[in-house]
This record gives sequence, structure tokens and C-alpha cells, in this order.
Amino acid sequence: MKLVLDAMGGDFAPIETVAGAVAFARDSGNTIYLVGQEETIRAELAKHDVSGLDLPVVDAPDVIKMEEKPAMAVRRKKNNSMVVGMKLVREGKADAFCSVGNTGAILTAGHMVFRRIRGVHRAVLVTPFPNNRGLHVLGDVGANTDCRPEWLVQWGHLLTIYATARLDVPNPRVALLSNGEEEGKGNELVQAAQVLMSRDPGLNYIGVIEPKEMMAGEADVVVTDGFSGNLVIKTSEAVAKYLLSILKQEIMARPLSKVGALLARPAFNATASRLDDKEYGAGMLLGLNGLVTIGHGRAKREGVYFALKATAHLVDADMLQKTKAKTELLIQAQQEQGDAS
Amino acid sequence: MKLVLDAMGGDFAPIETVAGAVAFARDSGNTIYLVGQEETIRAELAKHDVSGLDLPVVDAPDVIKMEEKPAMAVRRKKNNSMVVGMKLVREGKADAFCSVGNTGAILTAGHMVFRRIRGVHRAVLVTPFPNNRGLHVLGDVGANTDCRPEWLVQWGHLLTIYATARLDVPNPRVALLSNGEEEGKGNELVQAAQVLMSRDPGLNYIGVIEPKEMMAGEADVVVTDGFSGNLVIKTSEAVAKYLLSILKQEIMARPLSKVGALLARPAFNATASRLDDKEYGAGMLLGLNGLVTIGHGRAKREGVYFALKATAHLVDADMLQKTKAKTELLIQAQQEQGDAS
Repeated sequence: MKLVLDAMGGDFAPIETVAGAVAFARDSGNTIYLVGQEETIRAELAKHDVSGLDLPVVDAPDVIKMEEKPAMAVRRKKNNSMVVGMKLVREGKADAFCSVGNTGAILTAGHMVFRRIRGVHRAVLVTPFPNNRGLHVLGDVGANTDCRPEWLVQWGHLLTIYATARLDVPNPRVALLSNGEEEGKGNELVQAAQVLMSRDPGLNYIGVIEPKEMMAGEADVVVTDGFSGNLVIKTSEAVAKYLLSILKQEIMARPLSKVGALLARPAFNATASRLDDKEYGAGMLLGLNGLVTIGHGRAKREGVYFALKATAHLVDADMLQKTKAKTELLIQAQQEQGDAS
Repeated sequence: MKLVLDAMGGDFAPIETVAGAVAFARDSGNTIYLVGQEETIRAELAKHDVSGLDLPVVDAPDVIKMEEKPAMAVRRKKNNSMVVGMKLVREGKADAFCSVGNTGAILTAGHMVFRRIRGVHRAVLVTPFPNNRGLHVLGDVGANTDCRPEWLVQWGHLLTIYATARLDVPNPRVALLSNGEEEGKGNELVQAAQVLMSRDPGLNYIGVIEPKEMMAGEADVVVTDGFSGNLVIKTSEAVAKYLLSILKQEIMARPLSKVGALLARPAFNATASRLDDKEYGAGMLLGLNGLVTIGHGRAKREGVYFALKATAHLVDADMLQKTKAKTELLIQAQQEQGDAS
């Protein structure tokens, strides 16, 4: 398998991106193209033992500066690491593109290089998310902050296709994330989308749900706008860390509890690893004609490693072809239905 | 102290509301007016030992049904438990009104009975929220789902006043909740509010923050729209429960970890009680001429107990007078400045 990593994207690039790529190349044996300013990347690579690894460097001389508007800069400076990296995938030289850089910039580059699947309103960032019964899929988790109701409806379909393949569920239950289930709850977007989704015979729509039901595993697909979805995943991470940190404080304050925690350590480790699953290292942009994944902008080498691992998992599962073919069929059927009525 | 409880509000009223009121009256010695359909409430009270407790029942014959639009029904059926209960406070017969009923209905009743403090755009629901360094205050957590940028700016001021009194911080750091700090992040609302807040010399505005920084305690006041704020508090609760539940599963699967967890139980209990603090039982509606608190719609007796306890705490701290007087001064000063310029 051949992956492309945007070596210049993210808060700690290129030091941490290169280090994460080296570690993942070592563990997986995959080829990882490192795209960005060649000299800089080679200087980073020189700090590592890369014997036996396939880490080709591809030069992308244009650098987007912090003070530039990312989406505009991607258009203007076309020899940036995102556009150059995605072109490697488009040309068939690699299977997928992964970045922990600015989401808006990745989205712009993705639209430029791969284009949307015909009929798709907006690409949607989706990620598996753990719950009490297993996993559900959540999207949008950050690609589109201000959304229209019809986008959410279409994402319900795209996420259904993804969930069917990813979770191996035949008819995924689709829900809309809201702040309450009673009449009058939800913002204007949710209220409008709720009406459209409940009338859509192609969706197994079960209604709006709150975070409590989401974590209880009551839906397989949870649809939301990218601002809310991003807050939900970031709040989850932050609260999990907070909780484990105050538990640690309380344990360390009590000698007997310290002994107990030592004995219980395997259970703590198992809990932490259930949350740190490789699956959550990067989300997939659904709706493009190419496999693009986005990891955390704050990823250090371990985060980059897991972003690459999640990307490899999607390639292994042939997730692009599986979702793309079904999305094309879905949109074709919807258009024919529209023409017939 | 005399509190009013909406005995008919919430998913489990009146069984759980009455039970919670009885328990809190017993522990606190406070008078608690129970407002709603008199016969129904008396029938519930008959199931409890109420000797020595002061639990006057006030009849409010109008009942808002599940299928009615709550905010409209409150206007139409004025002898409902919310309006009747709030009038007891307005007439000086009680100090505060508490409900675990529909937020939209409480807000409508609150505006009808108490009216907004002159110059306040919208009342905002605020709650203390735990973080790694202590507490911050978060609002709006559910009163206003679709917001305008200028409301968020004013809430920055109202929450500053509240935080000064509540957290005993002289010059609270104010932040705007967002999905990222880079250029181009945030939805349209956040981007517009961000510009206004950064130009407001009266706010100690430190910028946008993500949930991670919020949980690290980097701000004393975190401002957001009511849809996002509600999702954030509900996600926090759901994730905390999920995490403790999978930790329990992993512990129970390992005999040695079970022994360890028994020894560490005091630390677990201390952690749970830090999260279950009485403070988070109900939020306060800031911006009204009366003390109104809102608890969880799904509160059972324990939740109602904590909602009443949080309300009593606000009365004890004289929070209405403290915030109201300063809000009036603030708005007067802003208007004079506006006239002068």
C-alpha cells in the first residue's frame, strides 16, 4: 500500500509529521510519500534511522503561512503540499492522502484535485465513534461549519452507505443530533432537516437524539453540522482526559487507593486503549472522487501515526470504492425519481 | 428561605418532583411551594411522610400537554404551574422559582412574569462547569438556540458579572467557544461575535477557545450559543458516564483489578462527587428581574433535589440582586456612551 502524508500540515510539522511517518512505515511496511519542502523534510529524515523504509520525498515548494487565509492560499499557491500530494493519488501513484493540516485548506484542495462525486452538495468529514454498545459513525465533524438542511439529509445517505460498509450493519439507524427531543427543541437547521429526513423514504430515520442516547448506541449514524460535530468530538476527548486526570489526583491523595490503582492498572490500560483506538486517528472526507483523511491539527508523532493507521485501514477496507459506487447509484436513482415525478 | 417548585415540569412529574421536594425540604428546612394541579400534587404528597415540613400546595389548574407547542401554550393557558409559580416570587412570597420543565416554556413564562432587565437582548442560561483548575461559567446552555452576534457579546458582560460574584474572580477572562483557533475556523456566528468582542474595551476578552482549553481552565467565562452549549454539557455528562461504565466493565473482567478497585473505591467516590456537585443541578437565567432556575428535564428525585439545592445556593449568595444591579449599571453606562459618541 502507498500512502501520501502532507508533511507540512499541522501545528507540529514537519518534526512530528516526519517522525510519525517513520514510525508507521517501520511498523506497517507501507510506502509513505512525504510531500512538502524537500530540503526541510530531508533534514528531518536525517534525524531518523530510515534503513529499509520506503519514504519518498516529493517537493512542494509553496508554503502557506499562518497569517494567510488557508482556503484562498491553497488556490493561489498551487504547488503546496496538499495539492501536490493529492495529485499523486489522482495519478494512481498512491492509494490515499492524509493530512493533519487546516481542514478548510484540505477541503479546498480536495475539491480542486478530486472534485465532488456528481450530485454531492458538500463533502462531509466522518469518523467512527465509540459508544456503550460498540461504534456508530458521526458526521460532519468539522468540514462544514454553516450548513443547509438539504446537506444534512444527503449526509444521512452518505453516512448510511459508509456505516453499512464500516460497521457491517445492513440497515443503519439514522439520527439527527439535537439538544432535546420535545417540540420546539433544536435550532432552525435541525428543525428544518428533521422535517426533510422524516419524509425521506430512503433513510432509516429514527428521529433526533441527544448525546446521552448517542453514547448509549441508539443510532448507527448520527448526522450534525460540522461546527457542532467538531465540538462534540473535542468535548468528548477533553472530558475523558479531565475525568482520568481528576481520578488520578484522587487516587494519589490516598495511599490505599494508590495500591488499589496499581492492582487495577490493566483495567485502566484497557479502558484507555478502547478510547485510543486506531480508528479515531483520522476522519474520512466522504463525497470526493479520492480518498482523503484528516487527522488532528495538534497531532504529535503518535497522533500522526494513528492518522496514517486509520488511513491504511480505510484503504484495506476499499472504503473509497465501496462508498463511491453506491453514492453514484443513489444520486442517479434520486435524480431519476425527480425526473419521473 | 422560600422556594417555588414547578411540580408539573419535567419528564417524571409529578412523582419525582414531589419526591425531590420532600427530600430537600427535610434536609434544608426550607419552605417549598409546590405549584400545579392541586389534587394530583396532594395525592403524591400523601405517599410521603411530610411531618414537620413546610410544603404548601398552590393550585395551577391549566396543564400543558405534550403535543402542544410549549411556548405558545404558556401564553394561552395562563394558569399553568410556571406562570402561577413565578407570580409567587414576583409578589415577594418566595425567593426563587425552579423548574425541570421545558426550557422554552420557562423562558416564555419568565419573560411574561418578570420581564427582562431593561436593555437586555435575551435572557441567558448559565451554569458553573468544572475544569482542571476549578470552575468556570458557561452560557448559554440551552435558552436560545439561534443567536445573533450582539447577544453573545452582551452575554459576555452578563456572565462576567455572574462569574465575578460566583467564582470570586476580580476580572474574569472571557472566551468564545469555537472549533478551532486558526483563521477561518468558527461558524458565521462565532466569526462575527469574535470581531465584536475583541473590540469591546469593557470585556477581558482572551479570544476563541476549544473544549480542550476550556477543560484546562484557561477561561473564567465561556460564551456560546444555546444549541452548542447544551450539546457541550450533555456530551460531557454522557461521556463521563460512558467512561466510568467501560472502566467498570474492564475492572469486572479481571479478578485482581476487582480487588484493586475495591481498595480504590474512596478515590472513585470522590471523583464522582466532584462531578455530581450540587452546583450543577440547575442553571440560572441571567437577565430577568427575578430568580429563575432550570434543571434537567430528565431529573428524577435526586436531580430535582440537586436543582433545588443549586437554587437555594443562588438565593444564599444573593445572586439575583448582585447581578441585576450591576447589569443595570452596565447597560446605563453603555447607553450613555452611545449617546455621547
